[in-house]
Amino acid sequence: MFKIIEDGNVATPAGFTAGAAAACIKYPDRLDVAVVVSRVPAVTAGVFTRNVVRSAAVQVSERRVAGGIARAVIANSGCANACTGNKGIQDAEAVAQMAAARFGIPAEEVLVASTGVIGTFLPLERIENSVAGLSLDTDGGSKFAHAIMTTDTRPKEIAISFTCAGTTVHIGAAAKGSGMIHPDMGTMLCFVTTDACVDAAFLQAALRRSADSTLNMVSVDGDTSPSDTLVILANGIAGNPLLDETNGADFEAGLHYVLKYMAKQIAADGEGATKLIEVTVAGAVTEADARVAARTVAASPLVKTAIHGADPNWGRIVCAVGRSGAQMDASLCGLSLNGVPVMANGMPLPFDEDEMRESLSSPEVTLCIDLGLGTAGATGWGCDLSREYVTINASYTT
Amino acid sequence: MFKIIEDGNVATPAGFTAGAAAACIKYPDRLDVAVVVSRVPAVTAGVFTRNVVRSAAVQVSERRVAGGIARAVIANSGCANACTGNKGIQDAEAVAQMAAARFGIPAEEVLVASTGVIGTFLPLERIENSVAGLSLDTDGGSKFAHAIMTTDTRPKEIAISFTCAGTTVHIGAAAKGSGMIHPDMGTMLCFVTTDACVDAAFLQAALRRSADSTLNMVSVDGDTSPSDTLVILANGIAGNPLLDETNGADFEAGLHYVLKYMAKQIAADGEGATKLIEVTVAGAVTEADARVAARTVAASPLVKTAIHGADPNWGRIVCAVGRSGAQMDASLCGLSLNGVPVMANGMPLPFDEDEMRESLSSPEVTLCIDLGLGTAGATGWGCDLSREYVTINASYTT
Repeated sequence: MFKIIEDGNVATPAGFTAGAAAACIKYPDRLDVAVVVSRVPAVTAGVFTRNVVRSAAVQVSERRVAGGIARAVIANSGCANACTGNKGIQDAEAVAQMAAARFGIPAEEVLVASTGVIGTFLPLERIENSVAGLSLDTDGGSKFAHAIMTTDTRPKEIAISFTCAGTTVHIGAAAKGSGMIHPDMGTMLCFVTTDACVDAAFLQAALRRSADSTLNMVSVDGDTSPSDTLVILANGIAGNPLLDETNGADFEAGLHYVLKYMAKQIAADGEGATKLIEVTVAGAVTEADARVAARTVAASPLVKTAIHGADPNWGRIVCAVGRSGAQMDASLCGLSLNGVPVMANGMPLPFDEDEMRESLSSPEVTLCIDLGLGTAGATGWGCDLSREYVTINASYTT
Repeated sequence: MFKIIEDGNVATPAGFTAGAAAACIKYPDRLDVAVVVSRVPAVTAGVFTRNVVRSAAVQVSERRVAGGIARAVIANSGCANACTGNKGIQDAEAVAQMAAARFGIPAEEVLVASTGVIGTFLPLERIENSVAGLSLDTDGGSKFAHAIMTTDTRPKEIAISFTCAGTTVHIGAAAKGSGMIHPDMGTMLCFVTTDACVDAAFLQAALRRSADSTLNMVSVDGDTSPSDTLVILANGIAGNPLLDETNGADFEAGLHYVLKYMAKQIAADGEGATKLIEVTVAGAVTEADARVAARTVAASPLVKTAIHGADPNWGRIVCAVGRSGAQMDASLCGLSLNGVPVMANGMPLPFDEDEMRESLSSPEVTLCIDLGLGTAGATGWGCDLSREYVTINASYTT
């Protein structure tokens, strides 16, 4: 149904161009300012962090997304512009103004995003100089994905094409993740573009629903960032009939596909991660229970270290569910690791430890918990906890 | 006010004896079964884990504590006897029966506790053999504290004496901590003895209140154990007038002193820890807000790794408060690290980075957050997150 476009990215949908530049925000000679522009005004929607501490960029972009129309995003890495008060807000607006001036767009139609160290101010002059020399083209999407990386080890980008109400449309996306990832509204940063023609209210609703079962089910370390931002720009250039709740199911499925891909990419490339952990909870009384149980397991340091060591210490998984707040009766609970049952009705089952260790050594590990109480379920993603995570985060600001 | 008794322990209060033996539960040649006995029936109180997954020992002991009278505790390390169903309950009762038979006590007056690997059964025959050869004496308290250790690097024990309603009384305690420490009702295991004569209802209330501001404010890794158990035995041999809510303030202060000592010991000796982190939250609207904020900061992997690396990355502390659920207005918030202000009114303050790094290299680090909203406060304790934590937990069951 969905065709994945080779080397696809945010500039793949019709009418979008992108580019990046080096402003030496934290490191010399590294792309750290990224811009994507639609050549016509686009319908926009967004979801943002629920952390009470909100970066200046989140505050500015959320207000602009509420206006319903946007034409560009300018994002930077190296500085989160959070805990920076009113000056931070002014700085974020100034950065939007720089992009607006450079590319001839109303400043109110430029969204901003920042990621990096908290409690430092943006180097406005260096950013202005970099934007002045920044050019956009349809090949610039890959640069965009590189420029928003912090401790990510690889860029995260995708584009798909599919048929929607008889017309071929595209969705492209770029994201970053790595650390302080336990999204409660979007993810660290994820930018989605599409040439589909979409109703604004439907776009917002579809984005929220898709985020809740994808990016909002990722945890790297349980820490929710003040910068979490997911925005989409839909410029309508594909020329399909306007999509809304009555005819938008295909579009929403495509959006979900893209965001699920990004969720797994972000989890697999968590700081120091060597393995992707997929946690499925079934048999819950409510979906909320299933979600909180899956997220608690995916975020548990003891589960994450055991998986890192390929240690079949499954009691930790059950105990994480037990403290998650989900309704649970341990005596009804079942658990399997990579498809091998290790617990049924709350009691241990025999399994071959050597085979299990080998199975847990693979780069993807699946944990399935059946609460045995109801019919609701959810899936979440996380990664293992390695010594490298500690090394990365013991000296992040330096 | 409180005299700390050199080499004091659970057997220091009058009428208590203790001992330990090696039953080879997980390791050969290591003390792993511990017993403390009062020569007369003692009033008892306890607080237990709120994890929905509860070890067999917790279920058995909680029921017996509700009876109000106990004479002994038998505890083991190496096996948590959790996720073991009805057989686990029967095994826990059998272990209590072994101690009852050996020391001539009604089995209903023997409390049990187990810590170690989840999802394995107790080796009853080896435990029975070890109990048969176990003898008690007033010097056995130190052995008791050693036998309940798992990944702890040092035993945790204390005894104090103080005057209570005109009579000298003693409180002794032994605890273990290290991993899966984020108590929600007691701590991993903490056993308290006293020769004071205490009303049962007051004893339970004072234990709960003291635990809530001490052991329940510790986090090593955010994972709540299914075995958390805090019990106290008060045998009344000191001969003081019965203590209750009207005249028990001194006793409760002594109990609080002992439990706070244990809380800090457990945090400082968290798995892989090199530093004790004390988090104080002031200016909160409610005490519940202050508590959840302090605990969230103390449990944040990003805060813990930054402190490990002596990295003054204070934005992570503010963001942990921001996701804690506590009422907060970032623009009113202040923060100091080891007494040096780094943020005021939500904005960064200049500080000497080299001096701060040196300060954060000390074995105790204090984080003070002032929310600037109200008058409530709370203090919590945690530890840094090191590579060693990962190493320990990547191969725990092996």
